[in-house]
Amino acid sequence: MSAPVSPLERDERWARVALAFLLEPGNHGIARSLAAEGAVATLAALRRRAGSPERYVRLADLDLEGLARQVRDAGARVLVPGDPEWPPGVDRHETPPTCLFVRGDPDLAAMAERAVAVVGSRAASPYGLRVAAELGEGLAGRGWSVVSGAAYGIDAAAHRGALAAEGTTVAVLACGVDVAYPKAHHRLLEAIAGTGSVVSEVPPGAVPLRGRFLARNRLIALLARATVVVEASLRSGSLSTAREARTHHLPVGAVPGPVSSATSAGCHELLRETDAVLVTDTADVAELAARVGDELADPRRPAPRPTDALEPLEYAVWAAAPVRQRASADRLAVLSGSDPARVPAALAVLEAMGLLEGEGGGWRKTASSLVTGGG
Amino acid sequence: MSAPVSPLERDERWARVALAFLLEPGNHGIARSLAAEGAVATLAALRRRAGSPERYVRLADLDLEGLARQVRDAGARVLVPGDPEWPPGVDRHETPPTCLFVRGDPDLAAMAERAVAVVGSRAASPYGLRVAAELGEGLAGRGWSVVSGAAYGIDAAAHRGALAAEGTTVAVLACGVDVAYPKAHHRLLEAIAGTGSVVSEVPPGAVPLRGRFLARNRLIALLARATVVVEASLRSGSLSTAREARTHHLPVGAVPGPVSSATSAGCHELLRETDAVLVTDTADVAELAARVGDELADPRRPAPRPTDALEPLEYAVWAAAPVRQRASADRLAVLSGSDPARVPAALAVLEAMGLLEGEGGGWRKTASSLVTGGG
Repeated sequence: MSAPVSPLERDERWARVALAFLLEPGNHGIARSLAAEGAVATLAALRRRAGSPERYVRLADLDLEGLARQVRDAGARVLVPGDPEWPPGVDRHETPPTCLFVRGDPDLAAMAERAVAVVGSRAASPYGLRVAAELGEGLAGRGWSVVSGAAYGIDAAAHRGALAAEGTTVAVLACGVDVAYPKAHHRLLEAIAGTGSVVSEVPPGAVPLRGRFLARNRLIALLARATVVVEASLRSGSLSTAREARTHHLPVGAVPGPVSSATSAGCHELLRETDAVLVTDTADVAELAARVGDELADPRRPAPRPTDALEPLEYAVWAAAPVRQRASADRLAVLSGSDPARVPAALAVLEAMGLLEGEGGGWRKTASSLVTGGG
Repeated sequence: MSAPVSPLERDERWARVALAFLLEPGNHGIARSLAAEGAVATLAALRRRAGSPERYVRLADLDLEGLARQVRDAGARVLVPGDPEWPPGVDRHETPPTCLFVRGDPDLAAMAERAVAVVGSRAASPYGLRVAAELGEGLAGRGWSVVSGAAYGIDAAAHRGALAAEGTTVAVLACGVDVAYPKAHHRLLEAIAGTGSVVSEVPPGAVPLRGRFLARNRLIALLARATVVVEASLRSGSLSTAREARTHHLPVGAVPGPVSSATSAGCHELLRETDAVLVTDTADVAELAARVGDELADPRRPAPRPTDALEPLEYAVWAAAPVRQRASADRLAVLSGSDPARVPAALAVLEAMGLLEGEGGGWRKTASSLVTGGG
């Protein structure tokens, strides 16, 4: 009954994709196992423990080659820990994402280093929508990326404000990066992917489930230097984003509003009951986010590496290449989740930079490409 | 050229009234001299130092008997430190009021023990006016007195809210308690005096001067357990009231509003830059004021005294009575600033309670009335 085990499962990157497909985000056991043994071993153990494949419905459904195609078809790439583009902030969480699926060109780690999460109620007031749009536009105008959840209301207003200022904005989804949710935001998500990034820890094709929204909220908080809640009712999910930020010692801002407004009650509660800072405009938010600037950025950034200058696609191809045996260009396209048509150009760059060596149609990493430099 | 020196200047209470007439509030030298030597000696020194009376224009204008009449005609009484009704909170200030002129029956010290100052902009928004009225009404409904400045805007709304709930409210003026300022608030002030109190440290007849508003603001703060700013522009005088409260370790609350509203900018600044607490409703304010309840009330309250049960008029008459020589009822009316028609009834009560002894139409304090009791 079970599908044949894909050779991709022996690759750390794709084993992580398999785990992201098989398990919901926030699994502590998997997080521990990944840290201790890596993804290939964790996945193998999962298969062994499964006994009969029927016990793990999703294991029977696992089609890694199909997922790799979906990643490519979505114009997405897979990030795993250790990739230069991997945003270090997410590793603050006890259950960091197994991998990240990313659509859009900008370097995710660089973007997160200068990003602010702007979140709030779906059922926002005209006042809240205006403030969110102004903050999105103002932050983008000052060179900050705006991270949000692409939901109705505050999220969308913040994204649109950033887009209006021709800034970068990051939509973190509770579904696959190729799934438009909500459907009415299909064009908004395309616009975000066009200049910014659409990010998810669940694989392409995945639908938004309740638990995935909560997990997604932690990523919104951890992909930014600070989280600002523009409007939130007392039960708004955006308060969980603020909680994640606070838990991980990231500053939280809240926009006040009329005390008679139910959609400001959550903000007022944050300001009364937590150390959230009252913010009224872009300058306040930038000040809040800048506070943690230096102590945050550096300790978690790896030392410079020869691969730091690579474009995301080039890096993905380099990272997919073996160290000893060689892999074909087609194989590297599959392993890296890249468009096969774009791989030859990337290989040419990588060879010119001395990061890959090619022979007889096969490619492998150079020894010097693996060195962690000092400056 | 100078008026004859009134015998009232030899009475501590009336010497204080004279000083209140002669000098603007907030005089540090006078505060030190009052604490060290008392009012009679301070006033005498002032007269000596004056050299020629012309150097002190106000000294030439001093007419203590006339002031005493004005106090009585205003239906007011004079409070000085040591009176049971003297609100201990005002002595927190380095320049406490020299005396207080009070219209209205309630015991001022008892009222201040359970009072909240509700202040804000004159040019308030409809939103702010509504919140101020709701807080005034809500606080009064919970048995809190509402202290404010009787100004246009937030102050008046807070007073009116308290009156609507048939609660007590205290108007602290920058002019004499018999002066309606602003004029349009004449009826409001009468209504406040009818059930609550109108208070000032400047004598009847005094007009509001710029410096008196600032001095008045410190009294608003110190006559309450907590100060709440409902709406304030960045330059609102109500922020000075909040500053006085903060300086004297009294809690400050601020009501948030739309970030686009200039009349909320001062509140937002308080919430951002100070330890002011965000308050959204009566419950929040009551919680804020209750926080400092016990540590505030007791250490500064004197031990119980035989005179504690007296009505204000009775107390004023008792306090005016000499210890050795005797004074007539008419003289006591003048000394206490009381309506002569009401003095005989007060004397009857005081004699029945053993606090005054009368003989041959003259009255003096009993020895037992001077004892500070233990329970």
